[in-house]
Amino acid sequence: MGWGDLGAFGEPSKETPNLDQMASEGMLFLDFYTANPLCSPSRAALLTGRLPVRNGFYTTNAHARNAYTPQDIVGGIPDSELLLPELLKKAGYINKIIGKWHLGHRPQFHPLNHGFDEWFGSPNCHFGPFDNRALPNIPVYRDWEMIGRYYEDFKIDLKTGEANLTQIYLQEALDFISKQQASQQPFFLYWAIDATHAPVYASKHFLGTSQRGLYGDAVREIDDSIGKILKHLQKLGISENTFVFFTSDNGAALISAPKQGGSNGRFLCGKQTTFEGGMREPAIAWWPGHIPAGGVSHQLGNVMDLFTTSLSLAGLQPPSDRQIDGIDLLPAILQGKLIDRPIFYYRGNEMMAVRVGLYKAHYWTWSNSWEEYSKGIDFCPGQNVSGVTTHTQEEHTTLPLLFHLGRDPGEKYPLSFASDEYQRAMERISVVVQQHKVTMVPGEPQLNVCDKAVMNWSPPGCEKLGKCLKPPESDPKKCFWPH
Amino acid sequence: MGWGDLGAFGEPSKETPNLDQMASEGMLFLDFYTANPLCSPSRAALLTGRLPVRNGFYTTNAHARNAYTPQDIVGGIPDSELLLPELLKKAGYINKIIGKWHLGHRPQFHPLNHGFDEWFGSPNCHFGPFDNRALPNIPVYRDWEMIGRYYEDFKIDLKTGEANLTQIYLQEALDFISKQQASQQPFFLYWAIDATHAPVYASKHFLGTSQRGLYGDAVREIDDSIGKILKHLQKLGISENTFVFFTSDNGAALISAPKQGGSNGRFLCGKQTTFEGGMREPAIAWWPGHIPAGGVSHQLGNVMDLFTTSLSLAGLQPPSDRQIDGIDLLPAILQGKLIDRPIFYYRGNEMMAVRVGLYKAHYWTWSNSWEEYSKGIDFCPGQNVSGVTTHTQEEHTTLPLLFHLGRDPGEKYPLSFASDEYQRAMERISVVVQQHKVTMVPGEPQLNVCDKAVMNWSPPGCEKLGKCLKPPESDPKKCFWPH
Repeated sequence: MGWGDLGAFGEPSKETPNLDQMASEGMLFLDFYTANPLCSPSRAALLTGRLPVRNGFYTTNAHARNAYTPQDIVGGIPDSELLLPELLKKAGYINKIIGKWHLGHRPQFHPLNHGFDEWFGSPNCHFGPFDNRALPNIPVYRDWEMIGRYYEDFKIDLKTGEANLTQIYLQEALDFISKQQASQQPFFLYWAIDATHAPVYASKHFLGTSQRGLYGDAVREIDDSIGKILKHLQKLGISENTFVFFTSDNGAALISAPKQGGSNGRFLCGKQTTFEGGMREPAIAWWPGHIPAGGVSHQLGNVMDLFTTSLSLAGLQPPSDRQIDGIDLLPAILQGKLIDRPIFYYRGNEMMAVRVGLYKAHYWTWSNSWEEYSKGIDFCPGQNVSGVTTHTQEEHTTLPLLFHLGRDPGEKYPLSFASDEYQRAMERISVVVQQHKVTMVPGEPQLNVCDKAVMNWSPPGCEKLGKCLKPPESDPKKCFWPH
Repeated sequence: MGWGDLGAFGEPSKETPNLDQMASEGMLFLDFYTANPLCSPSRAALLTGRLPVRNGFYTTNAHARNAYTPQDIVGGIPDSELLLPELLKKAGYINKIIGKWHLGHRPQFHPLNHGFDEWFGSPNCHFGPFDNRALPNIPVYRDWEMIGRYYEDFKIDLKTGEANLTQIYLQEALDFISKQQASQQPFFLYWAIDATHAPVYASKHFLGTSQRGLYGDAVREIDDSIGKILKHLQKLGISENTFVFFTSDNGAALISAPKQGGSNGRFLCGKQTTFEGGMREPAIAWWPGHIPAGGVSHQLGNVMDLFTTSLSLAGLQPPSDRQIDGIDLLPAILQGKLIDRPIFYYRGNEMMAVRVGLYKAHYWTWSNSWEEYSKGIDFCPGQNVSGVTTHTQEEHTTLPLLFHLGRDPGEKYPLSFASDEYQRAMERISVVVQQHKVTMVPGEPQLNVCDKAVMNWSPPGCEKLGKCLKPPESDPKKCFWPH
């Protein structure tokens, strides 16, 4: 999803009444970011509280490339990383992930090996259908074992766009919440549905209900589901004891627009880029009786903050033996405080940009290559800002491009290098960047090696289902990350 | 102002708490339009309920040109046009205009000759300062006579951006409302402030208060003023008897961005164009006790509807001897009905585009000329949609460019001419357009002739102030309208 996909964030069709109501009962974050313009690294950052370049969710195969975890990826979340559910366990929490894991699909990376007690969902995106020879279909797991595969046991009709997956994920969430409430058990639910990701789907009830086409149908179904989850918490009488946060893992994928792609509002470009459209996200905090209703926050926030904030809510301290990038947002959420902190925009292992206050400095600019662009792959459709949305990797480290995001949220008007404003802002930003770079200890890159042999050929449980497939010979190679 | 300038419409800094509250107490219109992408024609349409091509507020000097009323314009609102205040008089209303008139500044066009009982404001934009030799400074009138000039008696500091004009206009509004309430007199107040028009200004109290720079300061001052007006109505106990509508006369002028220009959200281009950014407007209806609080309407609306709707509220019928384009919005506002009606997008006397339902068909496309564009005049900064934001006037009358504004509000993806959807939609649209063209009787164009002799040299009242200036010899010429 993108920043502009919700009514509360100005989507012109205003079709998200439940999320808009969640915002009016809770707090809207206008300056909230992902940790990366792509899914896997952003999710790894959410669960570790650390930038992908620290937790290993990046590549060094080429400069400044977005990498993720397709099913031939060899790497995944390292055992050395401490995940939010692992830590919450210490405070007695039961942890469940529903939906897309995306932190590696090989056995050692299984979410139940990393602190989750339950899992219902898939290790990868719902791409397909595949032929189970060149590529296996993506498995769906219940806890330790697969229970079927997408397109086989979990239908997705690419022609009509019909799939009832979000409904299944919703029911799983409601059941889990009921169970924990019944046993008076504190719980952490990571409701990581993959809906709105292309190929976009919605269940029959929602098909054709949106002004926005299939993508809007999917958004409406998510909106409806979240309304049902919040009402369920209220019905069970635990809403005042349950902190809920809604956000997304990257900006809307404009390459899939208009039929399968969403909106980043007036922000520049989308998913895959370090412009605002790639990383600024819709974000809403909800906790009746604690968060003042109708609040609006300009706190610079990041998905990594959900790690630290959740620990804080559980009365736990973040690990002290490593750098944690997430901050505790509770002072911003409960007392309306503004905490001064920068936002870093990475692509692979390159810090492309940084935001300090209302200023954003680009040290590198790149949308994608001319080669890709000439094939019609466009991360900024209809947008072209000279010298900014560049199709070659442009270095600006000696004289960063500087934007004032208040006056110019669309990143169209770089400030004059000669202006006093530029000088003053860059003095402040340079200190932040220097400190960041000096203290940066990159993790071992996990997204460098791909091997068809590691694909989801024979996930645990495949024997019972008669769905084991024969893997090819191992042939590890450098993964190719084009952008 | 542009569609995206209010928090309720997704402006990322969300600095319009009063207008946002007005929306939450009233009804938000998401699909509301001006009658023209430029000020004078749009205002003439608002007050006559008729398209500029009917009421004469257009030019035939060149094809598809935007024209307005600079101070050398010879024309103005024809006597044959019936203005809203003229009609409201029949129902006993006292009518006042505060702010910019812009329907002609020569004596016969004076607002008090066209139904208004009172006027405080100027006939033209607050451009200047001028030298009173080549160009006179714009006068400010109280009723029949000028009481001073901009930059002389009404200060505007272009260096600091400071001017207290909006405060003066606010006080005029509050006083007028108090006076009418005291005398139990029904009233029509046209609060036509010119703030946010470049050169942008705000009063001292608001300078530097916005994240968005001077433009945002001006928006905040307008927001604050409207909050004060609504509170005043409530304090006087007449809020449930007073219908209030907020909107703008054209999209944000992106040529003035980022320092002096606003936001059209994710819509394409801005003022001067017939893309959504040029003509879709923020719009809020407020009438406590009558309009359901928090309503949202997708009714296709137009400033011309305020003419018909106001007459309806006053128990009057619109004139039956002429074509009225505005419709009565009360069924949409009070009962949530959706009235099927098209929106026409004109540039001069050319129908550039039409919206029917969620479809918009462009019969002509043009941003501005290559000649202007090469000089840095850009109505679509950072935006470039191939074949759409054209710099030559492109005719598509045989095969219009068609967009689905639900899936593609940014007008980036024309539908395939060969698609069933295109065929079906164009069949419906063609009927609407044909009917429109067959019944169109253009008025006499008022914006063709310019003459330096007619400028504001010696407005009525200048003698008392010693501010009469000597006009040059009359030398009427065709006005030059470059875009």
